[in-house]
Amino acid sequence: MYLTQPLHKAYRERPGLLALVCGERRQTFGDLYGKVRRVAGMLQEMGVGPNDRVGMLSVNSDHYIEYLYGTWWAGAVVNPVNIRWSAREVAYSLDDCDTQVLLVDDTFVELAREVQGLSSSLKTLVYVGHGTSPEGMLDYHALVAAARPAADAMRQGSDLAAVMYTGGTTGLPKGVMLTHGNLYTGQLGAIAGATRPDNAIGLHAAPMFHVGGIGLVLQLMLRLCPQIVLPGFDEVAILQAIHTERASETFLVPTMLKRVIEHPRFDEFDISSLSLVLYGAAPVDEALLERAMQALPQASFIQLYGMTELSPVITALPAWCHEPEHRTFGKLRSAGRPTPVAEVRIVDADDLELPVGEVGEIAARGPMVMAGYWNKPEQTAEALRNGWMHTGDGGYMDADGFIYVVDRIKDMIVTGGENVYSAEVENAILRMPQVSMCAVVGVPHEKWGESVHAVVVLREGATLTSDQVIEHCRTLIAGYKCPRSIDFRDALPVSAAGKILKYQLREPFWKGRSRRIN
Amino acid sequence: MYLTQPLHKAYRERPGLLALVCGERRQTFGDLYGKVRRVAGMLQEMGVGPNDRVGMLSVNSDHYIEYLYGTWWAGAVVNPVNIRWSAREVAYSLDDCDTQVLLVDDTFVELAREVQGLSSSLKTLVYVGHGTSPEGMLDYHALVAAARPAADAMRQGSDLAAVMYTGGTTGLPKGVMLTHGNLYTGQLGAIAGATRPDNAIGLHAAPMFHVGGIGLVLQLMLRLCPQIVLPGFDEVAILQAIHTERASETFLVPTMLKRVIEHPRFDEFDISSLSLVLYGAAPVDEALLERAMQALPQASFIQLYGMTELSPVITALPAWCHEPEHRTFGKLRSAGRPTPVAEVRIVDADDLELPVGEVGEIAARGPMVMAGYWNKPEQTAEALRNGWMHTGDGGYMDADGFIYVVDRIKDMIVTGGENVYSAEVENAILRMPQVSMCAVVGVPHEKWGESVHAVVVLREGATLTSDQVIEHCRTLIAGYKCPRSIDFRDALPVSAAGKILKYQLREPFWKGRSRRIN
Repeated sequence: MYLTQPLHKAYRERPGLLALVCGERRQTFGDLYGKVRRVAGMLQEMGVGPNDRVGMLSVNSDHYIEYLYGTWWAGAVVNPVNIRWSAREVAYSLDDCDTQVLLVDDTFVELAREVQGLSSSLKTLVYVGHGTSPEGMLDYHALVAAARPAADAMRQGSDLAAVMYTGGTTGLPKGVMLTHGNLYTGQLGAIAGATRPDNAIGLHAAPMFHVGGIGLVLQLMLRLCPQIVLPGFDEVAILQAIHTERASETFLVPTMLKRVIEHPRFDEFDISSLSLVLYGAAPVDEALLERAMQALPQASFIQLYGMTELSPVITALPAWCHEPEHRTFGKLRSAGRPTPVAEVRIVDADDLELPVGEVGEIAARGPMVMAGYWNKPEQTAEALRNGWMHTGDGGYMDADGFIYVVDRIKDMIVTGGENVYSAEVENAILRMPQVSMCAVVGVPHEKWGESVHAVVVLREGATLTSDQVIEHCRTLIAGYKCPRSIDFRDALPVSAAGKILKYQLREPFWKGRSRRIN
Repeated sequence: MYLTQPLHKAYRERPGLLALVCGERRQTFGDLYGKVRRVAGMLQEMGVGPNDRVGMLSVNSDHYIEYLYGTWWAGAVVNPVNIRWSAREVAYSLDDCDTQVLLVDDTFVELAREVQGLSSSLKTLVYVGHGTSPEGMLDYHALVAAARPAADAMRQGSDLAAVMYTGGTTGLPKGVMLTHGNLYTGQLGAIAGATRPDNAIGLHAAPMFHVGGIGLVLQLMLRLCPQIVLPGFDEVAILQAIHTERASETFLVPTMLKRVIEHPRFDEFDISSLSLVLYGAAPVDEALLERAMQALPQASFIQLYGMTELSPVITALPAWCHEPEHRTFGKLRSAGRPTPVAEVRIVDADDLELPVGEVGEIAARGPMVMAGYWNKPEQTAEALRNGWMHTGDGGYMDADGFIYVVDRIKDMIVTGGENVYSAEVENAILRMPQVSMCAVVGVPHEKWGESVHAVVVLREGATLTSDQVIEHCRTLIAGYKCPRSIDFRDALPVSAAGKILKYQLREPFWKGRSRRIN
């Protein structure tokens, strides 16, 4: 199992077929094959050896895909940098796994300079932009043009392919180590888990530094399908690309999906070619899904669920579950069934398996489970205890084997023996037009163990009392789920990726106490 | 990658779903899970250890599937015995890889006794029949009922899963060693290579001792689909099973397909549930395929091509290539495109790659390539030279990456610098109503290197001259392809599997000379 295999195949089977479209640039699979060999040659000529890490700090582009495959072809390991991070965070992630070479596009030249000042490992910056190469940076295009094509290093199986940094909501980012075998089987499982149309043309809207973005790149390459690359998410650009390039398949997170179908110019474009919408990476609300299916009646929908540590997909909700004649089967609220390569079980805090319908932690086993966290043997052992990857997600399995994700385990509240899912309470509070943001956490309570506490940010000029919020919740959810206390604030602490840092909200309440999770 | 994974999944995800139907017997996935654990327990209790080989000599049945998974669950290796072989051949295949335990059904009790008399390795016979256990044989049902459920040995990846004996047309059978990873990736590739309908009900017509039969078992298990098992090929039983059990997917070799659609009782059955016909294992003629598509208008067709050494599928001709609107694409004569896990290239006798359209030997690379031949390092090195499995099949790739199989390499004839494919000449001769069987081989020729020689068996009472045969051929194929000499015989030498042994026909002509292959 070697991630470079599709290039070998493409070179023989479809050298003349369009592989990548990025703005005005187009390349065939034959072109890409030649390019990747020279990118690998460039990396080797600058001293990158087997298993060395190579980073990239860039918006999406055709060069990002060249970087991924070029690094693998050279025998090295990709470290795709989170473009939403600060210089300090980027430097941490480079230093943590000793990444000495970083590719940078036009967008991040300044950030890269800052990173260089902070990082102890970074030695070489390669400019993958389209202007003049900034001082102190090597020129990607000149080097690639001059490089000798390398032979494929043929790294495979348990050889490391990627270190992907995640986290930040609970502490320092962790480098998830994914092998060639992990990413290879993960994508095959995702494809086999939910039937895809043949002869697709893929469209990238999600960022490629994220495992979801890389997953789509790999899945389309495994199927030898052309890929249209947009620099980032933009509703009109997406609609335009479908219209112009006849894209047939894309991956959208729910907020992207919402923004596309609600865009005022939606009707201006011919998007009849779009036959498959993959969605996931965040919970979708059923009303949005309904609207999307109405807005895109020619398209099938497939939900994917997973996480970086799982390469990344472990469940798929297939297209047929979305079809009107199967809707009474009632699985639209689920994240789907485990893919053919993934075992899923639900466990309690003692890692004992729970029966159908009971909420616990979602755990997964299979060839797509990460090799571990870079240089973090204890956190690795904890996450992979008893041979299963513990996702930190709370959920349950129904009698038909469908998985339902209810909350992050650590955000679940146990009050008087009842489980309360913070997401459910937050959704209730967010229905009040006065509320801009909110976060619900468990705080210690003498009698009930925990009680439900909400932190609410109001829209500018709006006013609300605690009683009004609690009264509103009572009309929507059971009494024990309603907040017992409300804290109004001007803002919530959020991570660079925009996730609310609930542990910071909980901290002052739990000082000196230990909170049992799950 | 562990072949037992689907059972772990099935036990959690769909324990109540029907897994196996065999005659009157039905079991759910929950039943099968329990059964497999006890079969493994039985094997371990009789001393079977990790990596030990366990044979089965049986027609298809639910017990065959219990045997496969029970053996893997116990950490052992399956050796599915060719039921068309003589006792001597069976004994050879057991002794070659030291198989000490053999499961036997009612059909083969007598053959098994004979094998026992010839084999030096065989120690234990287990009777998997439904009468009283014959003397000297252990009773499967009693042992399984009494066995303690075993824990899964969790063999995986490069651990050996199967030794499958093939060959016999050129010498002694060879034990093809397939690992868990080989069979796992091979089936995922086959599934991902040609879109399959969701929610299938599988039907077995091909024998399970053959890798094609095992492949279908594994593919249906990976997708957690029910399987209907018939003891052997029978047109009416197949039609009846589709009618009664609403089977939706089956694998048929071309001769089976022909016999099903041409059966006089074909119209008596409701076969509207059959939505997918997988076919392969032998060349299909386009006229038959046309008739089959007309007879089964509701069904999609997918062709699969490969061999035991390739676990077994490397190319798939997807359903859409069969559809009327894509027929002008003209790929029906091909064996399809390489699956996502398979690289295919065409090489000459010096193992140099040939360009598009040129005929050479089909070679394949990928995680589904066998670990080697049991105890045959030289033949392994020869077959796997330069890291590619050399199939022995002659063929070419077209500009769209589709593979066409023309002949076995060793059966191809080079005459005056031109390639002649024996299959093409044989097809021409077989069109004469007087001809019952024929085989075309290359014999030495001073000037042309080889000349085309035909061995013909006439139907009873028919007469033909050499000139008549040659004249007939001239009306169908180019002059240089027509036989120069004809040998009329009463019979042709055939292997136990019914394949014509061309090397025996060639031998007397080539005594003392070496014949360059390809």
